[in-house]
Amino acid sequence: MEIRQNKLTRQWIIFAPNRKKRPKDFRKEKTREELPEYDKDCPFCAGNEELLVHPFIIETPGINYNPWQTRVLPNKYPALEPDKSTFRSMEGIYIKMPGYGKHEIFIDHPKHNICIGLMKNEEVRAVIETYWMRYNELMKDVRNLMVIIFKNHGPEAGASLSHSHSQLISTGMVPSHLRVQAEEAQRYYDDNGRCVMCDIVGFESKYRERVIIENNSFISFIPYAAEVPFEIWIVPKRHEANFGDISEEERITFAEILREAMKKLYEKLNDPDFNYVIISAPRYKAGEPHLHWYLRIMPHLTTRAGFEIGSGIFINPSLPEEDASFLKD
Amino acid sequence: MEIRQNKLTRQWIIFAPNRKKRPKDFRKEKTREELPEYDKDCPFCAGNEELLVHPFIIETPGINYNPWQTRVLPNKYPALEPDKSTFRSMEGIYIKMPGYGKHEIFIDHPKHNICIGLMKNEEVRAVIETYWMRYNELMKDVRNLMVIIFKNHGPEAGASLSHSHSQLISTGMVPSHLRVQAEEAQRYYDDNGRCVMCDIVGFESKYRERVIIENNSFISFIPYAAEVPFEIWIVPKRHEANFGDISEEERITFAEILREAMKKLYEKLNDPDFNYVIISAPRYKAGEPHLHWYLRIMPHLTTRAGFEIGSGIFINPSLPEEDASFLKD
Repeated sequence: MEIRQNKLTRQWIIFAPNRKKRPKDFRKEKTREELPEYDKDCPFCAGNEELLVHPFIIETPGINYNPWQTRVLPNKYPALEPDKSTFRSMEGIYIKMPGYGKHEIFIDHPKHNICIGLMKNEEVRAVIETYWMRYNELMKDVRNLMVIIFKNHGPEAGASLSHSHSQLISTGMVPSHLRVQAEEAQRYYDDNGRCVMCDIVGFESKYRERVIIENNSFISFIPYAAEVPFEIWIVPKRHEANFGDISEEERITFAEILREAMKKLYEKLNDPDFNYVIISAPRYKAGEPHLHWYLRIMPHLTTRAGFEIGSGIFINPSLPEEDASFLKD
Repeated sequence: MEIRQNKLTRQWIIFAPNRKKRPKDFRKEKTREELPEYDKDCPFCAGNEELLVHPFIIETPGINYNPWQTRVLPNKYPALEPDKSTFRSMEGIYIKMPGYGKHEIFIDHPKHNICIGLMKNEEVRAVIETYWMRYNELMKDVRNLMVIIFKNHGPEAGASLSHSHSQLISTGMVPSHLRVQAEEAQRYYDDNGRCVMCDIVGFESKYRERVIIENNSFISFIPYAAEVPFEIWIVPKRHEANFGDISEEERITFAEILREAMKKLYEKLNDPDFNYVIISAPRYKAGEPHLHWYLRIMPHLTTRAGFEIGSGIFINPSLPEEDASFLKD
C-alpha cells in the first residue's frame, strides 16, 4: 500500500490494491446499446419539443443528416435563479447570499442512444463549440464569477435522464474548494516560477506510464493521486487558465481527445456511470500564470463512505499505472 | 433559493427547495426489522467466531444477557498497514509515503438486526466506551497523527455487511481537508477570541430552530449550511478539541444523545443509509483553543454529482429548519 499526495490540492489518497477488483471487474453489466434511437417520452429527443417547458437559448445546425446538433435551454428544475443579486448578508453569526446563478441544460445530440464515446469527431466538436460559446457568453455578465460546465452520465452519477446531456451552472461566488487549489498553485509558482499543472504535464508526458492518449495540443492521463479508479484528466499542453480562451484549433483537438477518452471508458468498462467537469479559472483570475484549466472525468465505480467524508482522504483500490495500461491496451 | 456559508470551512451550499421532495418522501422502503437476530453466514454474529480470520483486540463484557457487548478486531481488508513507516519520499515531482496506518473493525452488538437507533442506552454506552478506549490506545503511538472513528450504515453508505459495525483508521498524516478547517478556526479565533464551534453552539441553542435534541453536555442540530438533507451534528457544549479527553459523565450523555438522534433517523426516515464520523483534533493540536470535536452524521438520500465534484459546492434540496422540525415532531 502507498499514500500519494495530489499536487494540486495536497490531498492524500491511499492506494490499497489488496481491496482491488481486477480492472475488468469494474465493467458494468448494462449497455447503452439497448436504448432506442428515439424515445417518445424523452424531452431531449428530436421531435419531442412539446415536452419542453422552456424555449431554446441556442441551437446549432445539424451535421450527419441530423435535424439539429446541440441545443441549450434553461434547466426545468434550476438550482439557482438568474434574477437575484449576489449581495452577502448575515443571519446571526452566519453568512448567506441570495440564490443567484444560471443553470442551463445542453442536449448533446438529437438521438436518444448516442453518448460522447459513440459520436463522430465533428459531433463532439459541436458539443465543445456549444460549451465554449455559452462559457464566453455567460462570462460577459460580471455577476458570474465562475462558469462550471459538467456532465452527469448514468443514474449513479446523478443523471435523471438517459439522453446524453451536459449542464452549466454560473455562480456569484468562488468555491472555497477552488480557492484552496489556487492558493496551492500560487505557492508552487512562488517556489518554482512555473505553473504546477505545466510541470505535471511535462512529467507525465516524459514518463508516460499514466498517459492514455496525446495529440498536438492535449494530453490525457490518470493522475498520480487519482481519487477514484479510472479518474482521467484531459489537460491543454499550452498554459492557459481560462477555458474560454482556447483557440479554434484547440477546440478541434479537445473534441478529438475527449471523444477518444470517452470511447475507451465506454468500451473497456462497458459504459460506466461517470461525471466530468471543466475546471477553469474564476473571473479576475483568467490571466494568472499559475492556474491551468482541465477536464476531470470521475467514473462511479466505488462508494464514498464515512472515512472519505470525515477526512477528505480517499481510498482508491486501483493503481493509476495499471488503470492507464488497461485503458491503453 | 438561498446560498449559505459553512462557518467551519467557508464552503458554500445552495438550498434549492424547488428540487425538493417533502421530508417524508426521503423515507426508505426497506427496514431493518426484516433481518434475523442471528445469521449463520455473518462473521460478526455471536457464535460465528470461526468465520473471523483475526483474533479480537478487545471484547467488552455482555449486558442485557448478551454473551459479550462489543468486539474490536483488525479489518480483514485493511486500507493501511501497521508495520510501515511514515517517511515521505519523492517520485519525480510528486510526494508519497508508505501506506502506514491501522484499520480496525468494531462489532457494535452481538445481534445481527440491532443498530444504534434500536439499542438500549447502556448498549450504546458500551459502543462509545469502546470508541474512546481504542481512540486513546491508538493515540499512544506517536506515528498516529489522526485517529478517525466512523460508521458506514447500509450499502449506499459503503457498508458491505448489514450487522452493525463501526471502523477506526489511524493515519500518519493530517488530511489537507482538516488542515483547511483548522486554519479557518484559527482565523476566527484571532478575530473573536472564541472558538467558532462554541459560538455556533451558543447561537443554535439560543435560536433553536435547527436544534433536534439537547442534554446537559451535548447538543444535536442540523447545521445552518448542511451539505445534504438531514445532516446532523452532535457537539459537546464544553470546549474540547480532543474526543479522547471526554469525561465518564460525557461518555454517558454522548451515548444518550447519539442513540436518540439515531432513533429519530431510524423512525422518521425508516432506517436510511448513512455515514457518521467523529472529527477530533490531530495529535499536537489536542489542546488548541480553536478546535472542537464533533460527530457528523450524513444520511445518503441524494446523489453527489458533477457540479459538486468540480466545485465543492453542494446543492441541498432540503432546508435545515424544515428537516429539524420534521425530526423533532
